[in-house]
Amino acid sequence: MTFAVFVPDHKPSAKLPVLTYLSGLTCTHANVTEKGEYRAACAEHGIILVAPDTSPRGDDVPDAADEYDFGKGAGFHVNATREPWAKHYRMRAYIEEELSALAAEHFPVDATRQSITGHSMGGHSALTIGLRNPARFRSVSALAPIVAPSHVPWGEKALGRYLDEDRAGWREYDAVALIEDGARLPELLIDQGSADNFLEEQLQTHRLQKVCEEAGIDAKIRMQEGYDYSYFFISTFLADHIAWHAERLHPPLPHRVR
Amino acid sequence: MTFAVFVPDHKPSAKLPVLTYLSGLTCTHANVTEKGEYRAACAEHGIILVAPDTSPRGDDVPDAADEYDFGKGAGFHVNATREPWAKHYRMRAYIEEELSALAAEHFPVDATRQSITGHSMGGHSALTIGLRNPARFRSVSALAPIVAPSHVPWGEKALGRYLDEDRAGWREYDAVALIEDGARLPELLIDQGSADNFLEEQLQTHRLQKVCEEAGIDAKIRMQEGYDYSYFFISTFLADHIAWHAERLHPPLPHRVR
Repeated sequence: MTFAVFVPDHKPSAKLPVLTYLSGLTCTHANVTEKGEYRAACAEHGIILVAPDTSPRGDDVPDAADEYDFGKGAGFHVNATREPWAKHYRMRAYIEEELSALAAEHFPVDATRQSITGHSMGGHSALTIGLRNPARFRSVSALAPIVAPSHVPWGEKALGRYLDEDRAGWREYDAVALIEDGARLPELLIDQGSADNFLEEQLQTHRLQKVCEEAGIDAKIRMQEGYDYSYFFISTFLADHIAWHAERLHPPLPHRVR
Repeated sequence: MTFAVFVPDHKPSAKLPVLTYLSGLTCTHANVTEKGEYRAACAEHGIILVAPDTSPRGDDVPDAADEYDFGKGAGFHVNATREPWAKHYRMRAYIEEELSALAAEHFPVDATRQSITGHSMGGHSALTIGLRNPARFRSVSALAPIVAPSHVPWGEKALGRYLDEDRAGWREYDAVALIEDGARLPELLIDQGSADNFLEEQLQTHRLQKVCEEAGIDAKIRMQEGYDYSYFFISTFLADHIAWHAERLHPPLPHRVR
């Protein structure tokens, strides 16, 4: 597995908070590092950004080479249960169990101060990983996330083939279903372009808005007029997300205060 | 010819100053628009950025397909005089005579307020075009420019094949030679990475530093420790250049003041 890390200038003994960025369909670690425009904000706020790849890679990894939205580049951050995917497609375990420990081993990461964000498929993953691990992540945000994969073509295809047919098992990989089932976060930050051609069919932000209102989650969902699905959208708003996470990562934990 | 334009938000009747960015070898207009990280600075300072392609394109344009540093993607912004290049490779005429008029026709450009910058081959071009047209450009800067193409392999190859053998004709395409021959600018801003693997053989910043000192040109040449030749270098410093140009583009012309 490949992941990219940006470490801002820091004092030799310092440990810095870390923001994990999960990319969308077809991406590797490199899309955000080349086009995301986050370094100045990470440097200003003293935050390490970790950007993992979106799926397992390698000649021995099964793929659906003709499909951009399944197989390599489209792991959906699940632990697959069906063959031939179950052996390699374990992105949930990778993100939840391996990556932050690996990053902390090699970089000056303060593992007690973690946040998570992502784009599209990676936004789905940031939301679901965040909702499943509320004690681990101090803050969760997303850009143009898939919010209810059980109800949209990208998600039905991926969950329907990586996971068992029984849709009950899909709910832990569906942000809206997780909230319906009782998962809670104090707040969320979501940016969504109003001119995003995937908004209506695949992203369906309104489903998240509705369930957050019902659950009392303080979700700041910003519909950004005229923006589309591209990295120009991400590069415009990612620094805002970093600043928002920084406010939540830098204060000491409440029980340590005074 | 393709060029990219970024126009920041502005009042309906406003005309904005324009910064032209010339790219390096192998680039199109898209390298800087995707990886240059200049939009926030252009928006903050109210500056239009115009990024043209680096050479003519098309099936009828002669090329040296096996050479990254000659032919398509490597026009060096000369008006070629040798065949088979002379018909199409007229990037000097394009930048100096066509592009700004074309941009002003389609975008809210104030053609009286222009500046120019570029990277590597495009830095060479920004310097030479700026030095040849001191009344046109209010400010000139460059990132990792080729400063003396007559003395380095990239330049000797390009000028030696686009232009006649007599090296006297090369001098108008060589920033150091132009200054030696009397061309003057009040000031320059140059950033150069100290870990740039082209610095010693191809870029040779010290030649520009020496000739500017002798000519009394206030050249701010910043050797940036540890930075290489990549777009990560450009994306780190391009916003600084935009702010520097903005200081020179936004004050009214002296004869208009009070």
